[in-house]
Amino acid sequence: MGKRTRIREILSASEAGVEAVVKGWARTVRVGKDVTFIALNDGSCMSSLQVVAGPELSNYADVARLGTGSAVAVTGLLVESPAAGQRFELQARTVEIVGPADESYPMQKKRHSFEYLRTVAHLRPRTNTFGAVFRVRSMLAQAVHRFFADKGFLYVHTPIITGNDCEGAGELFRVTTLDMARPPLVNGAVDYAADFFGQATGLTVSGQLEGELFALAFGDIYTFGPTFRAENSNTARHAAEFWMIEPEMAFADLMADAALAEEFFRYLCRFVLDHCREDMAFFNEHVDRGLLSRIEGVASTPFAMMEYTEAITHLKKAPVAFEFPVEWGLDLQSEHERYLTERVVGGPVFIINYPKEIKAFYMRQNDDGRTVAAMDLLVPKVGEIIGGSQREERLDLLEARMSEAGIAPAGLWWYLDSRRWGSCPHAGFGLGFERLIMYLTGMENIRDVMPFPRTPRHAEF
Amino acid sequence: MGKRTRIREILSASEAGVEAVVKGWARTVRVGKDVTFIALNDGSCMSSLQVVAGPELSNYADVARLGTGSAVAVTGLLVESPAAGQRFELQARTVEIVGPADESYPMQKKRHSFEYLRTVAHLRPRTNTFGAVFRVRSMLAQAVHRFFADKGFLYVHTPIITGNDCEGAGELFRVTTLDMARPPLVNGAVDYAADFFGQATGLTVSGQLEGELFALAFGDIYTFGPTFRAENSNTARHAAEFWMIEPEMAFADLMADAALAEEFFRYLCRFVLDHCREDMAFFNEHVDRGLLSRIEGVASTPFAMMEYTEAITHLKKAPVAFEFPVEWGLDLQSEHERYLTERVVGGPVFIINYPKEIKAFYMRQNDDGRTVAAMDLLVPKVGEIIGGSQREERLDLLEARMSEAGIAPAGLWWYLDSRRWGSCPHAGFGLGFERLIMYLTGMENIRDVMPFPRTPRHAEF
Repeated sequence: MGKRTRIREILSASEAGVEAVVKGWARTVRVGKDVTFIALNDGSCMSSLQVVAGPELSNYADVARLGTGSAVAVTGLLVESPAAGQRFELQARTVEIVGPADESYPMQKKRHSFEYLRTVAHLRPRTNTFGAVFRVRSMLAQAVHRFFADKGFLYVHTPIITGNDCEGAGELFRVTTLDMARPPLVNGAVDYAADFFGQATGLTVSGQLEGELFALAFGDIYTFGPTFRAENSNTARHAAEFWMIEPEMAFADLMADAALAEEFFRYLCRFVLDHCREDMAFFNEHVDRGLLSRIEGVASTPFAMMEYTEAITHLKKAPVAFEFPVEWGLDLQSEHERYLTERVVGGPVFIINYPKEIKAFYMRQNDDGRTVAAMDLLVPKVGEIIGGSQREERLDLLEARMSEAGIAPAGLWWYLDSRRWGSCPHAGFGLGFERLIMYLTGMENIRDVMPFPRTPRHAEF
Repeated sequence: MGKRTRIREILSASEAGVEAVVKGWARTVRVGKDVTFIALNDGSCMSSLQVVAGPELSNYADVARLGTGSAVAVTGLLVESPAAGQRFELQARTVEIVGPADESYPMQKKRHSFEYLRTVAHLRPRTNTFGAVFRVRSMLAQAVHRFFADKGFLYVHTPIITGNDCEGAGELFRVTTLDMARPPLVNGAVDYAADFFGQATGLTVSGQLEGELFALAFGDIYTFGPTFRAENSNTARHAAEFWMIEPEMAFADLMADAALAEEFFRYLCRFVLDHCREDMAFFNEHVDRGLLSRIEGVASTPFAMMEYTEAITHLKKAPVAFEFPVEWGLDLQSEHERYLTERVVGGPVFIINYPKEIKAFYMRQNDDGRTVAAMDLLVPKVGEIIGGSQREERLDLLEARMSEAGIAPAGLWWYLDSRRWGSCPHAGFGLGFERLIMYLTGMENIRDVMPFPRTPRHAEF
């Protein structure tokens, strides 16, 4: 097989007058007088390359009947294109029909709804929108690794199958090899001692606790892996399986944590603007007008910071009828978050120092005795996008919080150990990768930024 | 908190005479006459920095009683070290004991067995060996992403929870939210229609099939994510959860696949030699003598290639008593693989074109009617380390193979669709990430190259 050149390279670097071998899929086929135009796309970029096939081809009759979606290999001469909007076209010397597609191909030229395309998630990567989504997703994953690698953070693979939190947590998927039709029972309860791992296990909801252990050995670490929620929520923002990025820094406090989150988030904004121009322009034009200027704004403006207590004051005097109540001690709802970032601040803002009752047991208690060193980053149009905290590094206070929260210390003995020997202040945060992609592409449904989304009653493909 | 400098940076770049702030954990504390030496490690590199603390410190009495494993923050002056084997030492101006550790710390100075250290997997990253293992692991993950990003491959997150292969496959972990003590039954069988996803689901054993779908849209893709096997094997090479790298190329045949595998594998060898010198030297000295020269050899020598049929001929005339039989049509066992790569070839070798009966249904049938376009890369000391194939892109032949193998087409309708419209020759391979790390570090147990290994009866931490 002749070595192909990617269309991205051809369109960006080549000169007219050179021979090229291009392989890809026909997006459209248009038969003119004495000539057939094939818009050939190979997934390397949004643009298709126009292939011009003339009747001198030995298989011209077949080429003229080529269906949308066919795989073809073309050799030819790259020439300046007389058509508007494209630099080159390929004058075909040979067109090999590698894998045909007939009129039953489910993605003919007309526009399809995102809902329909979810039912053909195995084919939707061949469309403009999903090509762009998954190219941006891939670039962003590279950006995440590059950011942390450049800063000397260690990448750690925390476990997917976990024995933590497995007694009764509602949001956990159970993992088992027991015969589910006839599970071994002891006094009416499942005997997990007989299961594969000798205990009850489930799918992780976060790598943070294990990440902390590594931060307390390597200083600065991050995780980037799949996490799971068995939540029966059919919203546009929830999936049962999603990827999460969780950095953790030893010898760091809440301010260092916020500084890292800001640097990271602005880096990612800048990265897609710089490295995904064609795809981002597409989103800006077809999916979310204003996207580019919004992201440019976030990339270039320092973030604000506000105490939770101050945020409550702002919300209480807001000339807006909120659906949910506003009171010191209650959590902020999405409507509150958006009011703060969009109306009060007019840009990204960290809300810090939340009441301890509404935050997780591992967050560090502040000296006021009623708040913890938590931070949420709120951004316009979305609300919370990053959540983090300084962790409670003092063993006695951590044990007291666990006891208050009803968490048995026995299951987390190893986590407590990290505060027993060589403990130190440390902090980290979590960023949902799909939420990030939605924010940066304007795509509004989480199902449309994952290759094969898992949601209630959906695990196809 | 004063901003710390990492010890790796101090040892590689600094000059004597500068002030420094260093934070980490005391590996050893040695009290001399009028002075205390702290070997401070912060995980950024293998080397510890020697801190010299004198009696002029206001808390010298506490410093002199510092326990192994304590977290400390030191400010001081970097000076040339009179001691052998280290360039600098830090003359402490202040030593803050951030988090003490007493004599109950489970990792006192003496050497511990790997078996013991598995029971304290939450603390073992603070040892020399596991510090090196996880630094190399992290660097290798970066290398994987960099290799494919540089070659323009798209990174795709294939699903972890899958409905494929879920009817009776023995090696699959079941994922469920059903009440396992009282599962809903229909005619004695579990009613998975009532489960979270409305069907039986499990943990993926490979992202390949979904990866192929993306290759047929983007050309060149790779996956790098966790995969699972519910195999009850307690060997040094099997884990229930491990990470796998699976590239897939459209418009590629078996030779292109082997070329990519060779380039990739040699790149990874070269990468650790170039980027992990200190840690690799440690492995070469303490874990596996000969490691560096072996990897250097692999990195710099082209790989051999041999037909399965020829391999059988070699094995049949081998002056060796194998445990397992050698016959055309039987799979190669580890002993055979090692004989071929170590004794016949004396280096890495691809074995290609295996009998179809011993290979997976998706591998492309060769014209001889009895072999498939499969390849295994064998390396000395290990045997098979990469397995791949050209995929069967012809719908009728694929359906026939599935039928022979007893695989119901209904569950893989989407996979078959990819051969129905715009199919093309494509090929890929899989590399187990932990097997790779074992190979490149000389560590002999898979439990010792993963942060928190999952094996039968073990899901701690």
